[in-house]
Amino acid sequence: MNTDTAALIERRTALLGSAYRLFYDDPVHLVRGEGVWLFDADGQKYLDMYNNVPHVGHCHPHVVAALTKQIETLNTHTRYLHDNVLDLAERLTGKFPAELDTAMFSCTGSEANELALRIARACTGGTGIIVTESAYHGNTKAIYEISTEDIPAHEVPDFVVTVPTPDIYRGQYRGDNAAAQYAAHVNDALKTLQDRGIKPAAMIVDTIFASGGLIATPPGYLKMAAEFVRAAGGLFVADEVQPGFGRTGRNFWGYEIDALIPDIVTMGKPMGNGHPLAATVTRRDLVDSFSQSTHYFNTFGGNPVSCAAGLAVLDVIEKEGLQDHALEVGLYLNAGIDELALRHPAIGDLRGDGLFKSIEMVKDRETREPHSDLALRLVNALRERRILLSSSGVDNNILKLRPPMVFAKEHADHFLQVFDEVLVAAT
Amino acid sequence: MNTDTAALIERRTALLGSAYRLFYDDPVHLVRGEGVWLFDADGQKYLDMYNNVPHVGHCHPHVVAALTKQIETLNTHTRYLHDNVLDLAERLTGKFPAELDTAMFSCTGSEANELALRIARACTGGTGIIVTESAYHGNTKAIYEISTEDIPAHEVPDFVVTVPTPDIYRGQYRGDNAAAQYAAHVNDALKTLQDRGIKPAAMIVDTIFASGGLIATPPGYLKMAAEFVRAAGGLFVADEVQPGFGRTGRNFWGYEIDALIPDIVTMGKPMGNGHPLAATVTRRDLVDSFSQSTHYFNTFGGNPVSCAAGLAVLDVIEKEGLQDHALEVGLYLNAGIDELALRHPAIGDLRGDGLFKSIEMVKDRETREPHSDLALRLVNALRERRILLSSSGVDNNILKLRPPMVFAKEHADHFLQVFDEVLVAAT
Repeated sequence: MNTDTAALIERRTALLGSAYRLFYDDPVHLVRGEGVWLFDADGQKYLDMYNNVPHVGHCHPHVVAALTKQIETLNTHTRYLHDNVLDLAERLTGKFPAELDTAMFSCTGSEANELALRIARACTGGTGIIVTESAYHGNTKAIYEISTEDIPAHEVPDFVVTVPTPDIYRGQYRGDNAAAQYAAHVNDALKTLQDRGIKPAAMIVDTIFASGGLIATPPGYLKMAAEFVRAAGGLFVADEVQPGFGRTGRNFWGYEIDALIPDIVTMGKPMGNGHPLAATVTRRDLVDSFSQSTHYFNTFGGNPVSCAAGLAVLDVIEKEGLQDHALEVGLYLNAGIDELALRHPAIGDLRGDGLFKSIEMVKDRETREPHSDLALRLVNALRERRILLSSSGVDNNILKLRPPMVFAKEHADHFLQVFDEVLVAAT
Repeated sequence: MNTDTAALIERRTALLGSAYRLFYDDPVHLVRGEGVWLFDADGQKYLDMYNNVPHVGHCHPHVVAALTKQIETLNTHTRYLHDNVLDLAERLTGKFPAELDTAMFSCTGSEANELALRIARACTGGTGIIVTESAYHGNTKAIYEISTEDIPAHEVPDFVVTVPTPDIYRGQYRGDNAAAQYAAHVNDALKTLQDRGIKPAAMIVDTIFASGGLIATPPGYLKMAAEFVRAAGGLFVADEVQPGFGRTGRNFWGYEIDALIPDIVTMGKPMGNGHPLAATVTRRDLVDSFSQSTHYFNTFGGNPVSCAAGLAVLDVIEKEGLQDHALEVGLYLNAGIDELALRHPAIGDLRGDGLFKSIEMVKDRETREPHSDLALRLVNALRERRILLSSSGVDNNILKLRPPMVFAKEHADHFLQVFDEVLVAAT
């Protein structure tokens, strides 16, 4: 660590306090970004394989131009008429089946999920929420309460019931019947709520279970879970903050792997390429029912500048064909990692579609014992070789790859070569 | 209403649904902003006397330039090192007494208040919250529960206790002893919590009671309230989303009217001149205590672009002397409105320091009966004369004036002339 970095860390601790975290043993001091590249204060260039927020690439010129133009023209709020919020609502709802016809805007995934739960509770009259293990849905109180990754078990309120992540690599069910076996836990959770005298409001699911290790969801699970919840009077909320906007390549939204239509869909992070923009898309009847008891206003949500960012991101995804690109490069990356796995037994499993991958580091492929220490060393070794990614999962043994969507085969080649070298050195 | 406006409203209802509201009988379709001026699609120019979010003026060139430069350079998050978040934290904490030395960033006032309550609850071990009547603190579940302006009384949870707004115009105490009389209700509220077996976490107060009608707070009230809450083991949270950043002219923060130091201060709206940026400033010991049980990450909060906006806003406030300007123009506006009040008995009361004013419209100055219908007609008549403001208060009879801080004497003169004319026509 150089002296500038040490001084910055000291200043940071003094000003921001102990709740803030930094990545890496030797944190990076970044000053510029372009496409998949980040540059530090010394002019060193890093391949960004972690940041999904700059979805269409750091400082994409089309997004920069759209933002700049609107920032110098007008920024107000949704209590005056403006075209941008309507254009974005139209483009977004156009990405869903006809039932999901109404868009409401906020600034963060936490706010989008807050609104989803408020709508679900107002419309069902219930309060119960079903969530999966190791889920992360945001940082506000009501969302922290359902973020099982963060909240200690003894703090989880009565109205929140946790079901197992449908994990066929580490979970209790791994066979052909796993989807139904995992979905049965949703029925158990509904029964638990009933026993507690709590009416269900919703089940909320990150449809690729990114915090749960980006598991390979058994086909049919989401659909069955949604049907069980609806049969008990609850709603099904798809949290698309991580999977949305074409990242998985195969689909524009994560829930589309199954034949279901969620009641509410939330989205955030990549939506404005870094600009704080989020949305809750749902059915008209639910919004009408919610509006009878309350109103909703979000000062910055849906303002002309935020919506200009959202529109520009959709433009780029479509014009540059980034969803298909993610699928193609994702398959290419899979082939390369599979090839490395032949020589590196520490690669226990590779999961994920498109440009969101999990690589499980294990001590033994048979026992699947997590190799957390190796994952941590690899993350830091890759950072020294100027490739940025991170680890995740309950055991923190899973390498998380989630680059900007303009990540191309040449970048995959570079990663595969360096990853091979650091694996050789670290194992 | 012209056909374009009608078509836009129809499209809006179809896309955004029934939870969204529009200002005015004939809503405005704004396309451009500059300083205190807004322009509609027909090129008509409106004097903006309502929007406090574009704090230093619509599209202020210094803020536009700072935002544009950072947007085209880099936008990441707080898990990498960056100077902007440290510079902003340093500038912000520099606006407070030494005890308030730590800044944490988020995107909206709701999020800043969410974090404040999470900190307060973690540090005190309590859950009870004391709030004033007709308060608005945000739109997330935990903040909706304390936003007494919105939540129906029967929905208010057990751990929230409401105290009267210390209103010496309409409230139950109007004499010299009003501060102590109102503060005594805080002790009653603490007693109520105790009777319910609930430990207090915090009292939260918008220090100018903007939603409660922008009342003239009796000196000493905030200090006494804070002392009572602390004596019972709770914290005092100053919600500076409305009063902060010099708006009241006299002080940079609203709480400074009394000799007290809050435990936590929250801020939002004007902080980024429209960019979604908010902060929670507090003492190091509280953040340390909070961090022991949990961590906090906000994807967009404190990112380089948001902080560039925050820094630019502080630059302009300082360079253009906007706090002193607000004080001076505010006094000038007061003199003009007082003069109008001599001829217009419907003006019942004028309150507010700097560039945040409330004008109470009444049917009778003696009985102080609210004239809600007149306030509504005036708001719409002013909109027809292209001056934008709004009404507020429990009875919606209070004209709310809250222009960008670059509002000058010449704009005040224009308002006073038109206000006189619409008062003559409407009464």
